[in-house]
Amino acid sequence: MNSFGRIFRISVFGESHGACVGVVIDGCPAGLALNEADFAADLERRKGGQGKGTTPRKEDDIPIFKSGVFNGKTTGFPITILFENKNTRSEDYEKQRSIPRPGHADWVAHQKFGGYEDYRGGGHFSARLTTGIVAAGVIAKKLLTLGLSANEDKNIPISITASITEIGGEQDTEKGLQKAIEAKDSVGGIIECVVKGMPVGLGEPYFDSLESVLAQIVFAIPAVRGIEFGTGFAAAKMFGSEHNDAIEAMSGKTRTNHAGGIVGGISNGNDLVFRIAVKPTSSTPQKTKQPELGYRQYGRFLCKRSS
Amino acid sequence: MNSFGRIFRISVFGESHGACVGVVIDGCPAGLALNEADFAADLERRKGGQGKGTTPRKEDDIPIFKSGVFNGKTTGFPITILFENKNTRSEDYEKQRSIPRPGHADWVAHQKFGGYEDYRGGGHFSARLTTGIVAAGVIAKKLLTLGLSANEDKNIPISITASITEIGGEQDTEKGLQKAIEAKDSVGGIIECVVKGMPVGLGEPYFDSLESVLAQIVFAIPAVRGIEFGTGFAAAKMFGSEHNDAIEAMSGKTRTNHAGGIVGGISNGNDLVFRIAVKPTSSTPQKTKQPELGYRQYGRFLCKRSS
Amino acid sequence: MNSFGRIFRISVFGESHGACVGVVIDGCPAGLALNEADFAADLERRKGGQGKGTTPRKEDDIPIFKSGVFNGKTTGFPITILFENKNTRSEDYEKQRSIPRPGHADWVAHQKFGGYEDYRGGGHFSARLTTGIVAAGVIAKKLLTLGLSANEDKNIPISITASITEIGGEQDTEKGLQKAIEAKDSVGGIIECVVKGMPVGLGEPYFDSLESVLAQIVFAIPAVRGIEFGTGFAAAKMFGSEHNDAIEAMSGKTRTNHAGGIVGGISNGNDLVFRIAVKPTSSTPQKTKQPELGYRQYGRFLCKRSS
Amino acid sequence: MNSFGRIFRISVFGESHGACVGVVIDGCPAGLALNEADFAADLERRKGGQGKGTTPRKEDDIPIFKSGVFNGKTTGFPITILFENKNTRSEDYEKQRSIPRPGHADWVAHQKFGGYEDYRGGGHFSARLTTGIVAAGVIAKKLLTLGLSANEDKNIPISITASITEIGGEQDTEKGLQKAIEAKDSVGGIIECVVKGMPVGLGEPYFDSLESVLAQIVFAIPAVRGIEFGTGFAAAKMFGSEHNDAIEAMSGKTRTNHAGGIVGGISNGNDLVFRIAVKPTSSTPQKTKQPELGYRQYGRFLCKRSS
Repeated sequence: MNSFGRIFRISVFGESHGACVGVVIDGCPAGLALNEADFAADLERRKGGQGKGTTPRKEDDIPIFKSGVFNGKTTGFPITILFENKNTRSEDYEKQRSIPRPGHADWVAHQKFGGYEDYRGGGHFSARLTTGIVAAGVIAKKLLTLGLSANEDKNIPISITASITEIGGEQDTEKGLQKAIEAKDSVGGIIECVVKGMPVGLGEPYFDSLESVLAQIVFAIPAVRGIEFGTGFAAAKMFGSEHNDAIEAMSGKTRTNHAGGIVGGISNGNDLVFRIAVKPTSSTPQKTKQPELGYRQYGRFLCKRSS
Repeated sequence: MNSFGRIFRISVFGESHGACVGVVIDGCPAGLALNEADFAADLERRKGGQGKGTTPRKEDDIPIFKSGVFNGKTTGFPITILFENKNTRSEDYEKQRSIPRPGHADWVAHQKFGGYEDYRGGGHFSARLTTGIVAAGVIAKKLLTLGLSANEDKNIPISITASITEIGGEQDTEKGLQKAIEAKDSVGGIIECVVKGMPVGLGEPYFDSLESVLAQIVFAIPAVRGIEFGTGFAAAKMFGSEHNDAIEAMSGKTRTNHAGGIVGGISNGNDLVFRIAVKPTSSTPQKTKQPELGYRQYGRFLCKRSS
Repeated sequence: MNSFGRIFRISVFGESHGACVGVVIDGCPAGLALNEADFAADLERRKGGQGKGTTPRKEDDIPIFKSGVFNGKTTGFPITILFENKNTRSEDYEKQRSIPRPGHADWVAHQKFGGYEDYRGGGHFSARLTTGIVAAGVIAKKLLTLGLSANEDKNIPISITASITEIGGEQDTEKGLQKAIEAKDSVGGIIECVVKGMPVGLGEPYFDSLESVLAQIVFAIPAVRGIEFGTGFAAAKMFGSEHNDAIEAMSGKTRTNHAGGIVGGISNGNDLVFRIAVKPTSSTPQKTKQPELGYRQYGRFLCKRSS
Repeated sequence: MNSFGRIFRISVFGESHGACVGVVIDGCPAGLALNEADFAADLERRKGGQGKGTTPRKEDDIPIFKSGVFNGKTTGFPITILFENKNTRSEDYEKQRSIPRPGHADWVAHQKFGGYEDYRGGGHFSARLTTGIVAAGVIAKKLLTLGLSANEDKNIPISITASITEIGGEQDTEKGLQKAIEAKDSVGGIIECVVKGMPVGLGEPYFDSLESVLAQIVFAIPAVRGIEFGTGFAAAKMFGSEHNDAIEAMSGKTRTNHAGGIVGGISNGNDLVFRIAVKPTSSTPQKTKQPELGYRQYGRFLCKRSS
């Protein structure tokens, strides 16, 4: 299924080279002011700018509201947002019909969807689908900024920042990017996300732990290969006496923050910290050699979805 | 919520020092032979043996079937399994009433559940709750061994192995464990899981990607701080031309397996590989110093669950 | 939430006088041929024709596919269908701002959504939203016609018929309709649905009983006030010896069908039979008198959704 | 699946002649006082007393708390309650192996679960499973009595009453029962449920309408064949001008209550009123004749669950 969330539920749809991509957001409270301009900064950031080292595809990414907004405010009903696809050249992808691209979802899509998937530009697997996820994030952040979540009336200012801390193994990200440009290759990186002003008590032990829920949505982003909270993988090398965060005050403030703000699956009010590993983009001028498999020739009628 | 899964759904319950811990498994097909002995090996492994460096608590961990099994076979209806708690000394935990233990869930539990949580031995947060998760895993593995999943009739033998690859930073795990014993401290480690014989096509792009779903349940295990698939965090240092796995045959077999068997959120038939980072156990003889907070004195009536 | 279904999940959105109404269908298998013409008959039937006794609003109801269909076939990914609203005169509804219409959702919508709801023509509550439900039904029926459901490979031809069996208390429905036209009033009725060729085994005991699931979606249709299966309310007047359906053959065929094809929440292969009661449309030329309440004056910012 | 609810979720398990029946309740807030005595009245009512016209099976129905209650109060974690089965004579049911009882789930259970179901006394289909549903209801009512739901802090006293309004077609229920006793037969009836003090705003349009959600759980009760809200099936015979409830005050109070307290799927603060039709119990001394089918001879290994 292409949905996430119980109270503020998002559902993404669309294909890279179809009419549009988009999102339905169900559960957003009524009365939140929303307009096109609210989305500009984050959508621009998603595109990666116009500079070197980014995708050549240029789209306006203007959100078109189809439902759930009335007189400039949310109505409390499902919000549907479309982003039209304009800069598409489908003919470029005809060769995919016989050569599944390494690192891409072409081959698994063909296996699972029997040759009926829209293969142009990765179709539904395209990172272009993150447009809808970003749009939903804009709305979610706006709710948080107002100190209002769908579930609670807590009046807490929350700040969320995510930044690239490493590209191609270089902590000087400019240097890592330059290395990739010179090598005419794509390159991976690390992103760190820090949330300040966290309320205490978000999350549950076990399957709805804050880590479980965040990891579920983080791995929805194409190309993510790992996630770690707080000290993360480095914690595996530590002694308990080093790792344990001493609680210094009734507020729950800890001296260190090895736990990354989550204990027992529940936020403890300290900064929420996690890092994600992004693999290098599969599309790269340096082609990986592989035989032509001629795989798109055995479509069968009406394949069964297996999960 | 304390449940996981849509077709084969598990729900855990119980407290460390209550009457029992247990699990309800809903959606298991009828006709699967199940008896006490099926569970022995995995439950024993969960306990960590009787050797040095493990918990001193000794429980029999004998599964008591309360529903869903008839004449030694599953009926297709919910399977309820209890594990009695016998080796409990509640008095040991009275001091927790005033000093929340660092690294443990004591403080967040108290905040979220208003002082009404069963604090003895971590209560519902105790790793003892993994008994039910392991029991559900035994049943799931038995279904897979038969080449039968709850959803499909694929006749594929699947092998699942998980092993500790590092303790306290040492790949010689015996050495890492010895180091901890000598330091009289707890220690973290890395576990690698490899699944061979994976069917092609499990998972969906986005929120139900195989990584998303596996990460959700893996972070349900107490003390897990990170997860990575395939090359994982190391992929962030690679070029695309290195990382891309060339597809060598119509079967989907790839030359390398940097992707860890998952592309576009969907299994590609190669080995599924992931690693998890486990922090050092919070319980350690080396006490972390922190002030007595006297925090268990302000219970309020009927706290609100916040997620 | 505005979604229904676990394997074939539909989500409706839109407002009566907004840009459009529509539906997202997630979980439809790949390879199903779909075109505009497939939808014409059922969408026309939903509109109620152009004759006497029906709504004066005229819309084309042409399905616009925005995702999930490629080269005339489903791709296995979410199918998004829009229906544009063209025949709208929003000014007609300005008076609703001060007088909540009796029988309509105006008042509750205002209470729940704080005055931010799109009140024009009932907004999201409008029966126009059933366009999306009918479109989803067209796809579902086409899957069934092919002997293929999203979940099973059963090769069973299924026929589904629904007919009006009573209007305004008259079993001669023409007569009932005529009575309403003469009275210049709206009128209620009974619809009976019969499904032949049912597979055995659909449904579960308790919360996912076939009755539970059908009732959930039937009550999603505006104006439905009751549902009964098989003999229904008349069964309450019978003795057990009369009501019990004798099983006559190994196939499960019963002599009578008081159960309406469902026993223990599970289909038994006999005809599935249920009836629903539809109240008279709230919009009627015969106005119900009520005081002007001036109720749309106390909008508060960002109301909380209460369920 | 055997679960219901998103915020306060109940899961039932057990078999009529197995070790026990029971329920897990997940999502109940912490701090609610609970003891055995709270359950006595409703559990006694479920049993139907010891008088004429009721089941001869006698069970104590003492709730055994296995988790989620600590020092007499709920902890906020899953509450597990067992009811032991003591008064069982399994040998009585051996004949079911060859003759599926008319009106019972024997035949469909055998088809769906391949002969592996626990057939004794109806197994998981037995009305004895309602013990767990009643227990969950006791807890839910206690939360409401305190003016506290799992989701809201509304301070509204709610009263819920359900009464038999008709037995065997007689509104004098004593007379209807007597008629059945004399005929040595089982008999159906009508139950009316009225909720006073309803908050405004519960429910959503469409699939989570208050009618949809109530109908889903009501049809989970074995033997229910129909449900109607407000005027219900009689509304189908009315004109709109008669049926529409005039809103008389800003509070939402209506002059009449044909809608039964629900408009647009949402509670309007007037009394919630619904009626359910219960078919005559399938177990009756007046046997329905049917051939011996010898149906329990073709069990196949590991049947597939079909929904």
